[in-house]
Amino acid sequence: MELVEVTRKLHFCAGHRYWRSDWSAEKNKAVFGACANENGHGHNYTLEVTVAGEVDPGTGMVINLSELDRIVARKVIERVDHRNLNTDIPELTGKIPTTEVLAGFVWQQLDGAVPGATLTRVRVCESDDLWAECSRAAGS
Amino acid sequence: MELVEVTRKLHFCAGHRYWRSDWSAEKNKAVFGACANENGHGHNYTLEVTVAGEVDPGTGMVINLSELDRIVARKVIERVDHRNLNTDIPELTGKIPTTEVLAGFVWQQLDGAVPGATLTRVRVCESDDLWAECSRAAGS
Amino acid sequence: MELVEVTRKLHFCAGHRYWRSDWSAEKNKAVFGACANENGHGHNYTLEVTVAGEVDPGTGMVINLSELDRIVARKVIERVDHRNLNTDIPELTGKIPTTEVLAGFVWQQLDGAVPGATLTRVRVCESDDLWAECSRAAGS
Amino acid sequence: MELVEVTRKLHFCAGHRYWRSDWSAEKNKAVFGACANENGHGHNYTLEVTVAGEVDPGTGMVINLSELDRIVARKVIERVDHRNLNTDIPELTGKIPTTEVLAGFVWQQLDGAVPGATLTRVRVCESDDLWAECSRAAGS
Amino acid sequence: MELVEVTRKLHFCAGHRYWRSDWSAEKNKAVFGACANENGHGHNYTLEVTVAGEVDPGTGMVINLSELDRIVARKVIERVDHRNLNTDIPELTGKIPTTEVLAGFVWQQLDGAVPGATLTRVRVCESDDLWAECSRAAGS
Amino acid sequence: MELVEVTRKLHFCAGHRYWRSDWSAEKNKAVFGACANENGHGHNYTLEVTVAGEVDPGTGMVINLSELDRIVARKVIERVDHRNLNTDIPELTGKIPTTEVLAGFVWQQLDGAVPGATLTRVRVCESDDLWAECSRAAGS
Repeated sequence: MELVEVTRKLHFCAGHRYWRSDWSAEKNKAVFGACANENGHGHNYTLEVTVAGEVDPGTGMVINLSELDRIVARKVIERVDHRNLNTDIPELTGKIPTTEVLAGFVWQQLDGAVPGATLTRVRVCESDDLWAECSRAAGS
Repeated sequence: MELVEVTRKLHFCAGHRYWRSDWSAEKNKAVFGACANENGHGHNYTLEVTVAGEVDPGTGMVINLSELDRIVARKVIERVDHRNLNTDIPELTGKIPTTEVLAGFVWQQLDGAVPGATLTRVRVCESDDLWAECSRAAGS
Repeated sequence: MELVEVTRKLHFCAGHRYWRSDWSAEKNKAVFGACANENGHGHNYTLEVTVAGEVDPGTGMVINLSELDRIVARKVIERVDHRNLNTDIPELTGKIPTTEVLAGFVWQQLDGAVPGATLTRVRVCESDDLWAECSRAAGS
Repeated sequence: MELVEVTRKLHFCAGHRYWRSDWSAEKNKAVFGACANENGHGHNYTLEVTVAGEVDPGTGMVINLSELDRIVARKVIERVDHRNLNTDIPELTGKIPTTEVLAGFVWQQLDGAVPGATLTRVRVCESDDLWAECSRAAGS
Repeated sequence: MELVEVTRKLHFCAGHRYWRSDWSAEKNKAVFGACANENGHGHNYTLEVTVAGEVDPGTGMVINLSELDRIVARKVIERVDHRNLNTDIPELTGKIPTTEVLAGFVWQQLDGAVPGATLTRVRVCESDDLWAECSRAAGS
Repeated sequence: MELVEVTRKLHFCAGHRYWRSDWSAEKNKAVFGACANENGHGHNYTLEVTVAGEVDPGTGMVINLSELDRIVARKVIERVDHRNLNTDIPELTGKIPTTEVLAGFVWQQLDGAVPGATLTRVRVCESDDLWAECSRAAGS
C-alpha cells in the first residue's frame, strides 16, 4: 500500500518586525539583529500545503485543486498577503512573527479544514535559505 | 544509526487532457476546468526518485547513479518523455492522468526494480507549484 | 539619461507537435526528433514581457502592472494557456509552433498594444534550458 | 572585439507601502491595489549589478569581486537591507518605492562608483515575476 | 501536537575526484566514469540542516538562527568551502567523497552539536539533480 | 522587423584554482582569497549560448537545436565537463580561469562555428550569484 500526498505551493508577501516592548532596545538588537530595525521590513513567502488521502479512481485526485486553492486562499492567503504580520493578524498579536510561528499559524488554520483529505505538512519559506515546517507529531 | 537516502531528479515533458467520456461536457468542465479543453495541453514534469540503502564503503555509494539512471530511463522516462499520457501509456488507459496517478504509475514501475536499494519516495512535479508524492504507507 | 525597463513574467502551459504533412514520417523524425511523436506532448512555458518608458513621478511607474497584466492576459495568456498550439491558435495554423515562432506571435500581439510604453523584448521559455527572444531590430 | 560584462547578484529584504497622502484612500486603492494596505508589507529583493571593462590579463578579472562587493554593500545593501523603503532612505522620501524607482536609486548610487569598470545595467527584482532594469540610454 | 522543524540552507563549493589507487585505471573509469578524471573537478554544493524542537514562546524560535549559523559555519562550512574533499578533510581520507559520504560527514559533525534542538535531517545537494540525505533511522 | 534570438542553456562541472607562481603566497591570498587555496575547488557551471538569425518558415527554427547541441558539445562541453580548468584546457594554460576568461574562451570556440546563425552572446555562470557575458562590441 502506498501513501499518496499532494502538495500545493502558494506565494504571498508580508511585512514584519521582531520586537519585544518588555525588552530594552539593546536586548532586542542582541537577540533579533536586523529583524529588530525600527520601521520593519518584509519578505516574499512561499507556502507549501501537503495533504494525504485516497486517490478517487473517478477523478484521479486526492482532492480537487480548485477546492484546495479556495480553502487555502480564504483561510490563509487572503489574510496574510500584502499585510503586516505584527498588526494585521489577530492570532499573532503579541507574538514574534517568525517562520516557525507562521507555520504554526497556517497549520492551525488548515488542520481539519480540508474535507476528504488529511493535512500532513505545512512548509513556510521566508527565503530560499530558511523555512519552517509543521507536521503531526508521532503518537499524537 | 543513520538512514541514508539518495535522490535523483529527472526531467520529461508530456501532453495530457482530463476528460471522462461518460460525463457531459458541462460536468467535465465543472470538475476539470481548463484541463478538459478539447485538444489537450502539456507540461514540463520533473521526477524525483529516492532510494535508501547501505553506503558501500568501497564506492561511497548507495547505488551507482549510472545504474539508477539506466533503470529509471528504461522503466519511466523513455515511456513518458515527449508522449501523450492519455494515449501512449497502456497502464494509464482509461485513467485521468493527474499528478497523483502519474506518481502512482512511477512507483509501480520502480518499486522492487532497483537492486540493492529500497525505493522510499517518488515525487512527480507538474509545475513549480504542484506535485504528488508516493511513499510506502506505514505498516505496509 | 537612463533607460528604464520593466519586465513581467507570466506562466502558461500548452501542447504542441512538430509535424509537416508534406514530409514523410522519416523526414519529420529526422528533422524534429521526438517532437514529431504522433500524439503530441507539451510544456510549461514562461513568458517575459519587457516594456520601456518614462517613470511617472506621481506613481513611480512606467506602466501600472494591473493594466499590463490585463493586456497580456487578454492578448496572449487566455489564448494559449491550457491550449494546443497546433490547433487552437488561428495565427499559428500551418506553422511549426517552435519557441521562436511563439515568441514572434507574442511580439505581434503586444507590439503597439501597451499604451504609454514601448515593447522592447519578449522572451518565451519552453524549458529552463531553451528560450527565444524577440526584440526590435536595430535600424527598424 | 568582444565586450565582456560581469554580473554580481545580491539579496536584500525590505518593507514598503505605496501611498500618496494627497490622494483619497479610494484613489490610492484604485491605483495601487493591495500595495496601499495600511500597515505595509515587504519583499525579498534581488539586485544584479553588471559592469563592463577590459579583462586584466594578470588576474583574468574585469574587477576584483571583493572590491565590487564592498562598494555595492556600502552604497546599497547596507542602506536598504532589513529597512523600510518609505521611511529609511532619504533619497526616496516622498517617492513611491516601486521597483522602477528602486532601480533608478541603485543606478544613481553606483554609476561612476566602480573604479576601472563601467556600470552597464542594474536589475532589481521584487519577485520572480517582476523586475526593473536601468541602463544607459543610447546617445547619452 | 505538532512537530516543528526549521531548515537552514547554506552554500559551499569544493573539488573532488573519485579514485581508488588499489584499482586499475580501467576499473576506476568503469565504476566512476568522468568522476575519475585525473585532475579532479568540483561542484557548487548546497547543504540543508533541519532541526526540530519546541518553539520558545518568548522569541518564536526553535533556535536562534545566528547561533545555528555559527555552529554550522565552524563545524562544516569553514572546513569544506573552497577546499578539496579528497585532500583537505581528515575524516574523509581514503574515502570516496560522494554525496552520500559527504552527508554522513555533515551528520556526524552536527548530531548533538545544536543545543536545545534535535538534528532531524541533513541534505547535501551536489547539483540540482542529485542529493543525499541523512536522518535518524527508525528505532535507533 | 524583429530580431529573433535563441538561447540554449547547458551544464558542466569543473575544478579550478586561482594562483600565480610569480607571486608570493601572501599576494595570491590577498588578491584571490579562498580561490587560491592549495588543492583547488570547483563549481557547477551553466553556459548560455545565444544565436540570432532568420526563422526558417519551413521549420520554424533559427537553427535546429540538435545541430546547435552537437556543436556546443564538441567545441565546449566535452572539453570542460568534469575537467580541471587549470591543467586540462591548452587554451587556458597560464591564465587565471575566472568566469570572464572562461566566457572569452567559449566565445572564441563558438564564434563563426554555428552555420546559418550569428553568435550574439555567451554567458557563463559560476554560481547563481556570479556570471560573465561575452558579446560583440559595438562597431566591431
